[in-house]
Amino acid sequence: MENISRLEQQVRFIVEADKVKQIFRRNRIMDGSRYENDAEHSWTMALTAMTLAEYAVDPVDILRVLKMLIIHDIVEIDAGDTFPYGNEAVATQHEREVAAADRIFNLLPRDLAAEYRGLWDEFEAKDTPEARFATSVDHLGGVIPNYQNAGGGWRENSVPVESVMQRNQRIAQGSPVLWDYARSLIEELAAKGLIVSGALTS
Amino acid sequence: MENISRLEQQVRFIVEADKVKQIFRRNRIMDGSRYENDAEHSWTMALTAMTLAEYAVDPVDILRVLKMLIIHDIVEIDAGDTFPYGNEAVATQHEREVAAADRIFNLLPRDLAAEYRGLWDEFEAKDTPEARFATSVDHLGGVIPNYQNAGGGWRENSVPVESVMQRNQRIAQGSPVLWDYARSLIEELAAKGLIVSGALTS
Repeated sequence: MENISRLEQQVRFIVEADKVKQIFRRNRIMDGSRYENDAEHSWTMALTAMTLAEYAVDPVDILRVLKMLIIHDIVEIDAGDTFPYGNEAVATQHEREVAAADRIFNLLPRDLAAEYRGLWDEFEAKDTPEARFATSVDHLGGVIPNYQNAGGGWRENSVPVESVMQRNQRIAQGSPVLWDYARSLIEELAAKGLIVSGALTS
Repeated sequence: MENISRLEQQVRFIVEADKVKQIFRRNRIMDGSRYENDAEHSWTMALTAMTLAEYAVDPVDILRVLKMLIIHDIVEIDAGDTFPYGNEAVATQHEREVAAADRIFNLLPRDLAAEYRGLWDEFEAKDTPEARFATSVDHLGGVIPNYQNAGGGWRENSVPVESVMQRNQRIAQGSPVLWDYARSLIEELAAKGLIVSGALTS
């Protein structure tokens, strides 16, 4: 092991994490001009969580929610963005992301590595109010830009409305209010024919 | 006034805030491939603050620091990114940003508008431990990518080392440890001739 200072280890992690700025999602930024990267997405998720915290169904420690959302996609530096609809990559997603978490969080000093890995594991397990609300926000982070872009990534990838509903109803576990809202946006897209009914074909 | 729900007001703010993804800074992302936008920068600042919180010189409420950093550049949607070195735009920066804060935060319901405006005013005034530490982190957010890019925006814009030192020594007010570190990076760039001594000419 190279002998570097604690601060240098922390900075190396921050420099490594910067690579999420080159990991692109299937949804566009709100103005539709280009795809969104994971750093931008994570920022919007933090802003969304602090702005909509009042709609969490259970009391949440908003600091833990923010930390979770800030780090939640760093694993995609190694694992890539996995489009969650009818994609074979979904089957191996967790395994790939765990390997990434093992590598990337361990760039940090041991105490911080344990904290961040704990936050990421908690987010993945969705067994706490914080993880459930963070997941609601994360899913809303797909719904709102796709709504702003007339169906966006769902339309571009021919994702049927049934799949969109099935995946995003998980929003209700962290926030029934936000699920009611998200569902109304999805229903509006479906009513306009921007996302259509049907079996998933990919 | 249009009569829209509280949640719809909150979402409109989140959609408006998305425009920072089109506001570009003078520094590049760490890999040097392109300029960094304000959303990416703000995400890195939140990650940096939570990772380096132990170096704050005074005890800080890290939740307030994170919220401050998440919202600190939203005003640049209207005011643009102001390059802080020898630029006439610096003289009008605060005025332009206050006008932007008046417009953008007031998209929110009154209580949230007041909270976010308070956080932004606090960040600008730099009179609290949280604002001073957030500012240290924000300045480090210029130093680290410019160091990673062999002088980066400083070199591209011929900013002399004296100006870089003068501006960034403010890091010491929130964190002497981080200023020692930042100074060592700047000194290394100067020793390699990547940023040079001289009067600012722009």
